[in-house]
Amino acid sequence: MQSNGGEYLIAPNPGDTRLTRAVTGVDHTGQPVETRVVEERPLTIYLNGQEIVTAMTIGDYPEYLALGFLRNQGMLGADETVTRVDYDDDLEVVVVRTASQTTYEEKVKKKTRTSGCAVGTVFGDMMEGLQGLTLPATEVRTSWLYALSKKINTTPSLYLESGAIHGTVLCRRDRPLVYMEDVGRHNAVDKIAGWMLSEGVSGADKILYTTGRLTSEMVIKCALMGIPVLASRSGFTAWGVEIAKETGLTCIGRLRGRRFMCLSGEERLTRDADPDSVDDEDRKHRRKSADA
Amino acid sequence: MQSNGGEYLIAPNPGDTRLTRAVTGVDHTGQPVETRVVEERPLTIYLNGQEIVTAMTIGDYPEYLALGFLRNQGMLGADETVTRVDYDDDLEVVVVRTASQTTYEEKVKKKTRTSGCAVGTVFGDMMEGLQGLTLPATEVRTSWLYALSKKINTTPSLYLESGAIHGTVLCRRDRPLVYMEDVGRHNAVDKIAGWMLSEGVSGADKILYTTGRLTSEMVIKCALMGIPVLASRSGFTAWGVEIAKETGLTCIGRLRGRRFMCLSGEERLTRDADPDSVDDEDRKHRRKSADA
Repeated sequence: MQSNGGEYLIAPNPGDTRLTRAVTGVDHTGQPVETRVVEERPLTIYLNGQEIVTAMTIGDYPEYLALGFLRNQGMLGADETVTRVDYDDDLEVVVVRTASQTTYEEKVKKKTRTSGCAVGTVFGDMMEGLQGLTLPATEVRTSWLYALSKKINTTPSLYLESGAIHGTVLCRRDRPLVYMEDVGRHNAVDKIAGWMLSEGVSGADKILYTTGRLTSEMVIKCALMGIPVLASRSGFTAWGVEIAKETGLTCIGRLRGRRFMCLSGEERLTRDADPDSVDDEDRKHRRKSADA
Repeated sequence: MQSNGGEYLIAPNPGDTRLTRAVTGVDHTGQPVETRVVEERPLTIYLNGQEIVTAMTIGDYPEYLALGFLRNQGMLGADETVTRVDYDDDLEVVVVRTASQTTYEEKVKKKTRTSGCAVGTVFGDMMEGLQGLTLPATEVRTSWLYALSKKINTTPSLYLESGAIHGTVLCRRDRPLVYMEDVGRHNAVDKIAGWMLSEGVSGADKILYTTGRLTSEMVIKCALMGIPVLASRSGFTAWGVEIAKETGLTCIGRLRGRRFMCLSGEERLTRDADPDSVDDEDRKHRRKSADA
């Protein structure tokens, strides 16, 4: 089904007809054209009795998305036991249930008594989660970065099929393990966080690769997942870099062909590859990012 | 200061040193490099006494962002009178005040009594806003689309300066009027909505150009702003196209050089330009989108 699927535990499934739809239009010459584009569906996430958010998603792995979202937003603490995750296809609702009421639900109750909305607190909660966090001194070799970049960009995906989608890949050394895609900028990374939580997988020896920009939120999520290395083929924001430095995260941006820029945590980087031995990306696999 | 600034009422200001920061790193050869990247700041938006959300923004036009966000989310109805908009630079807070309590605040009170969070209701509110909406039969000429595309992509901007940013432009015929940029996918369009609201500008004779994908939310916002034509150089989602068809919005995607795809509302399109007379984009001005 795909070139290097053997390496993946979860790979994109561009053949899944529920994830794309044929759309017809008229091109610049006036000729009718048909193209396949990705689906986009609302998914409402509940934490026990608490309605949290309605996310727009392509609709695969709703349970992972809900779990990962709640964990990455600091609404579901490491100490809390998830008893059930129920997905209702018709209602487009996921309910994550915990053994006891979460501290977040308590916080919302307090907030609502003072008539403030819970959302405003979320970013603060995410930052709180970084307090006292130490990321391991995991090595990352430039040869792995080059190998991962090439494997990921040549893996059959919804991006290569339809474009207009983000991709995030959980990797170990030079092996891509879990490759998630989504229309929502953060859904792809949240689905990976949900998978890690469900499978009890540690981030300590992992590298997180994303097609998206390295914004503050992306850096914080990577750190909260305990992953010491974050690599992106895209750009970055000033605050994203600042938080990466504060948390001791190795942050690599603009990774394209032989080129990249290491913005923080260079001490983890082992330069074992000669950049001149690395090909530049050929047109076919040069990603124009999710917005292209 | 910029090539065709004379046409703009508001144009990007890449020279504004508050919007970018110099970031140093190490490149693929091990050499230190410095690059300017866009800033990203939290902005907490209040509607009267109600804390609504903390948005990540480059930080220009916070008042427009707050107004446009509240309007586009259906939290600030057309019937409601805005009495004041106060921005506190130190607290990074904007408070939008209305003559009387808004129906949204009422709704939140109700929601909070049933312990549901307000966020979940927002998307529904946005869709509700489309009920009975009719967009005018405004003409859009292909010669205008080509002219706008070329002018916008050659206008000095934070994107051309630093990348990793989205742009949205309010246009009339072949003239770009207001060009907003932001790190947040929807902030740029919300800032335009806020400007329209403040200045009492109608969307009826306008075209909205965006560098971002045409997702359901982008299409809904354009329709809520009363703008009948939405054009993007990027891709689109199935639901975005579906909503555009339902609301009678002219939706144009993948507008690059001479190429584009009209996905809905083709009846507004006048083909007055010969595509072969249009140059393809040169490398320098070929946008790789906000993520590149």
